[in-house]
Amino acid sequence: MTIYIPLPGNEAMAAELAELTNSELGALELRRFPDEETYVRIASDVAGNAVELVCTLARPDPQLPGLLFAAYTARELGATSVGLIAPYLAYMRQDKRFSDGESVSSQHFARLLAGAFDRVVTVDPHLHRIHDLGEVFSINTKVVHAAPALADWIKAHVEKPLIVGPDVESEQWVADVAQRAGAPHLVLTKVRLGDRDVEVIAPGLQKWKGLQPVLVDDIASSGRTMIEAAHHFEKAGFAKPVCVVVHPLFADDAYEALEAVSSRIVSTNTIPHVSVGISITSLLVS
Amino acid sequence: MTIYIPLPGNEAMAAELAELTNSELGALELRRFPDEETYVRIASDVAGNAVELVCTLARPDPQLPGLLFAAYTARELGATSVGLIAPYLAYMRQDKRFSDGESVSSQHFARLLAGAFDRVVTVDPHLHRIHDLGEVFSINTKVVHAAPALADWIKAHVEKPLIVGPDVESEQWVADVAQRAGAPHLVLTKVRLGDRDVEVIAPGLQKWKGLQPVLVDDIASSGRTMIEAAHHFEKAGFAKPVCVVVHPLFADDAYEALEAVSSRIVSTNTIPHVSVGISITSLLVS
Repeated sequence: MTIYIPLPGNEAMAAELAELTNSELGALELRRFPDEETYVRIASDVAGNAVELVCTLARPDPQLPGLLFAAYTARELGATSVGLIAPYLAYMRQDKRFSDGESVSSQHFARLLAGAFDRVVTVDPHLHRIHDLGEVFSINTKVVHAAPALADWIKAHVEKPLIVGPDVESEQWVADVAQRAGAPHLVLTKVRLGDRDVEVIAPGLQKWKGLQPVLVDDIASSGRTMIEAAHHFEKAGFAKPVCVVVHPLFADDAYEALEAVSSRIVSTNTIPHVSVGISITSLLVS
Repeated sequence: MTIYIPLPGNEAMAAELAELTNSELGALELRRFPDEETYVRIASDVAGNAVELVCTLARPDPQLPGLLFAAYTARELGATSVGLIAPYLAYMRQDKRFSDGESVSSQHFARLLAGAFDRVVTVDPHLHRIHDLGEVFSINTKVVHAAPALADWIKAHVEKPLIVGPDVESEQWVADVAQRAGAPHLVLTKVRLGDRDVEVIAPGLQKWKGLQPVLVDDIASSGRTMIEAAHHFEKAGFAKPVCVVVHPLFADDAYEALEAVSSRIVSTNTIPHVSVGISITSLLVS
């Protein structure tokens, strides 16, 4: 028997996963002591069962101790295996030492998870130089692709779409979304100037005049790439773009800033956010 | 050569430790990306040196990933050993499974630190049922006792002190402080009603009339024990107590509430706080 146990904020997804798989929905109690230490209690009988902790990992740091304690506890209580379902998996971007002395945090984060879990399931991890989670994780990993869900949504909601990807690295993924949606695509050239500053170049736009730009990206964090892209399309005389995002991280005021230059923003439910309109839950267990 | 490297907020203590031991003061860069992941970089050449990361662990959860990443990185960069100097060590109170399914977080927290460090140095850990950090940690531990520093401060600043401990468990420690300060002592009987609620009983107070109560405790978190004790002494016609604390955690409005019923509050520098007036830094390296 599998028991899906949500960390705080992941209750709806865990309930849906349990229902989709005819499994049990478990419960976990997590609260802060007055001194801000975390109290964790697994309120289900997990002995002899496979446990799947459900915890998306946007804003990961304050969540990590409680999540690891829960995993250790599940194993101590006799779970036959302990898996992590993290629709958004943090820390996959820092995958090499860019400057002397830097933490390669993708490896360090993976090491902490591998010390607590038998397997990790996630959706479209934001990988750069590595191509497979197996290069970072010593435990089993499964990657779910949101592209089919994105394409379905675009087909159903956008007329004459032009699928626009953020950078050359995303070409293959964007082409896949576009093909599934039966639409043309192009990718921008992105120049990153800092954590928050991005410039984009979009040559040859005029041949797509009359199409509805649909900006797709795996992550919207600062939102700068999409905002810059929207400005480019505006200057070129296009309609305000539709933005379709897998992981709606949206730091600080990024969402408001993107809203101001978009006709619509829609994202998947890997991270709870006001823009969620596409469910990937069934893909996690397919 | 030993290099002391402070995590953010621990710069003064690391500098003092380096000076006291004629060692090197290292530097660490730690910042948050817009998506609230932590960037860590060790900005000193640690290869071939013993590294001591200095990081007090009040409010531990958001600090833990960065601290562990820093330790992993120091080792990858060739440090001969990596130690942790945590003047306050979190999570030592949950040392057994009080209810089914609970995380024994003292063990779980120790497991995370043991996976990153070769040794841990701390001041008066708040232990209940265990008597030695070695019962929780698989790595070397060193416990520094603040009692001599507390006693010195009381001798220098309080006339005719009566040393008052919070509970029977603290008897031995309180007696030690009192003896060093050349003062009598008593301990209260504490009844804990919840995370924030405490009642105290202090029988036979009248024989100490005319002495200045000095409430001593290893931790002030909710502050309820000391506040309740202060009320007892007030009702019994004593002067407002002086409060002397090792670890000034002071959750929420605890400090303001304690100030209202005390003549003075002083604590050691294991946690940065407005009440700090006693330095234990030299004890960490003696």
